[in-house]
Amino acid sequence: MGKRIVIALGGNALGNNLPEQMVAIEQTSKAIADLIEEGHEVIIAHGNGPQVGMIQAAMTELTRSNPEKYIPCPLSVCVAMSQGYIGYDLQNGLREELLDRGIDKPCATVLTQVIVDPEDPAFKNPTKPIGSFMTKEEADKMVEERGYTVVEDSGRGYRRVVASPKPQSIEEIETVKALVNAGHVVVACGGGGIPVIHTGGGHSHHLKGAAAVVDKDFASCVLAQQLDADCLIILTAVEKVAINFGKPEEKWLDDLSAEEAKKYMAEGHFAPGSMLPKVQAAVQFAESKPGRTALITLLEKAKDGINGKTGTAIHA
Amino acid sequence: MGKRIVIALGGNALGNNLPEQMVAIEQTSKAIADLIEEGHEVIIAHGNGPQVGMIQAAMTELTRSNPEKYIPCPLSVCVAMSQGYIGYDLQNGLREELLDRGIDKPCATVLTQVIVDPEDPAFKNPTKPIGSFMTKEEADKMVEERGYTVVEDSGRGYRRVVASPKPQSIEEIETVKALVNAGHVVVACGGGGIPVIHTGGGHSHHLKGAAAVVDKDFASCVLAQQLDADCLIILTAVEKVAINFGKPEEKWLDDLSAEEAKKYMAEGHFAPGSMLPKVQAAVQFAESKPGRTALITLLEKAKDGINGKTGTAIHA
Repeated sequence: MGKRIVIALGGNALGNNLPEQMVAIEQTSKAIADLIEEGHEVIIAHGNGPQVGMIQAAMTELTRSNPEKYIPCPLSVCVAMSQGYIGYDLQNGLREELLDRGIDKPCATVLTQVIVDPEDPAFKNPTKPIGSFMTKEEADKMVEERGYTVVEDSGRGYRRVVASPKPQSIEEIETVKALVNAGHVVVACGGGGIPVIHTGGGHSHHLKGAAAVVDKDFASCVLAQQLDADCLIILTAVEKVAINFGKPEEKWLDDLSAEEAKKYMAEGHFAPGSMLPKVQAAVQFAESKPGRTALITLLEKAKDGINGKTGTAIHA
Repeated sequence: MGKRIVIALGGNALGNNLPEQMVAIEQTSKAIADLIEEGHEVIIAHGNGPQVGMIQAAMTELTRSNPEKYIPCPLSVCVAMSQGYIGYDLQNGLREELLDRGIDKPCATVLTQVIVDPEDPAFKNPTKPIGSFMTKEEADKMVEERGYTVVEDSGRGYRRVVASPKPQSIEEIETVKALVNAGHVVVACGGGGIPVIHTGGGHSHHLKGAAAVVDKDFASCVLAQQLDADCLIILTAVEKVAINFGKPEEKWLDDLSAEEAKKYMAEGHFAPGSMLPKVQAAVQFAESKPGRTALITLLEKAKDGINGKTGTAIHA
């Protein structure tokens, strides 16, 4: 029987620029179409690291050349643009691959915001570098005028760093649900979603863009929970999760309980900023409701993984 | 009883840059919320002239400063980005205004493509200026390397011109329909939609971005037809349509049959690139099925217009 599956695509599935994106998306579409062809409902979330970097760099160049006309573009707005940029190619790649296989399903991109907590400790300690390198003068100006946090990057210049708060909920969840229930293939939570915060207390309905980026694996996890998905597939650059990675006693894992995963995390087996957040998101999903499974594997192994042939499955 | 209404918002309802957009959208949201509060189903399409111009200028600056890393960004991709840029603010403005009135309806932006005909005569005669001014050298390079059509603009430099073909259908119509039927307020067809053409003949499913911009009034008209809307509201800078505009015998029109409108168009009463395409789109919609009405008026008069108090109504 078909499962409801949320897939979290990494940047490597999308390429670093437009020509790379078009090639990468062809492969990505085949892997996703394999799952749809087997009767699964698929919702696609994706990263946007290189893409939002490109857009922010472009908007910075525009402000540099027309400072009287354009203010620096907020990061949240750049994320919104990146959802259009990536979603356009991704939904078309998928649509074409499905039609080539005789499957006529609407593919759609939903602009997606994620709610984050303004009190999230991440805002106190921004660590995620974003956008172009700046000179000291430019960096000082941004700090003074716009309150940016900047860091010096090993002699290459200054870069802005932003927070990576945890996503709390998906603002457009009803929209994604309505489309999934109507049989559409949905691209959502691009770049982890546009991070927004509720402002002005309990009675305000205003959402304000946050100077932050949301980890796409955590956003996918929340999306999968809110959609009551059966499975969260987190794609990465290795076929399985390993403990003692790169050491003589390296061991690839087929299957992992949430308890075991937590033990391995505590023992420091997974690299922060790399495998660790993936395992954390997988555990969060697996523990959120009985019967939910997360799978960490390679893009091209997604179908085999769902059929229990490879990848690392994480369950409660 | 509530009507199904497609609203075509002009650039003036959106502002020329981000701070202007945020102010403009507050007013726009109030006018649209007035219609939703009266029980109408509303679908919002919008222009993107200044916004896609800004994005293309930014992407051009990026290519100028990193020519080895970034190729010029296709116009269709810039339109996709502009849908994210505008939709994000527009859906939030609307959502907030509705919640402030106690109306809890999901507001969503759907990335939208419109199919255009590669044989459309507009492609033979591109006239729509797009993006930044270029030097003669830059313009010559773009002509040679990328096949751009460029024109010299009265001593201010060279600009690229693109075609404005007629939209044939909305690729994501099933997505928009599913959401409207589920009671969502949908933002679609941003910037007239991303123009795409079917390539490779009858058996290919590939959609290719076209170097073109689609008129948002014509795109809104096709959207309204495909959604079986009762009414198409085309917002503009005047409360009503006039014949002999600006002359002593100027006459403001409350009501106009498609036949009368065609007579006036033939007599040259409406300015090309301004009121003419609006009246053409209105006539196309009014004639597409019995009972369909188009309304041309000011944003702040939309509610009065729907209630028959002002604006120019065009019917079959």
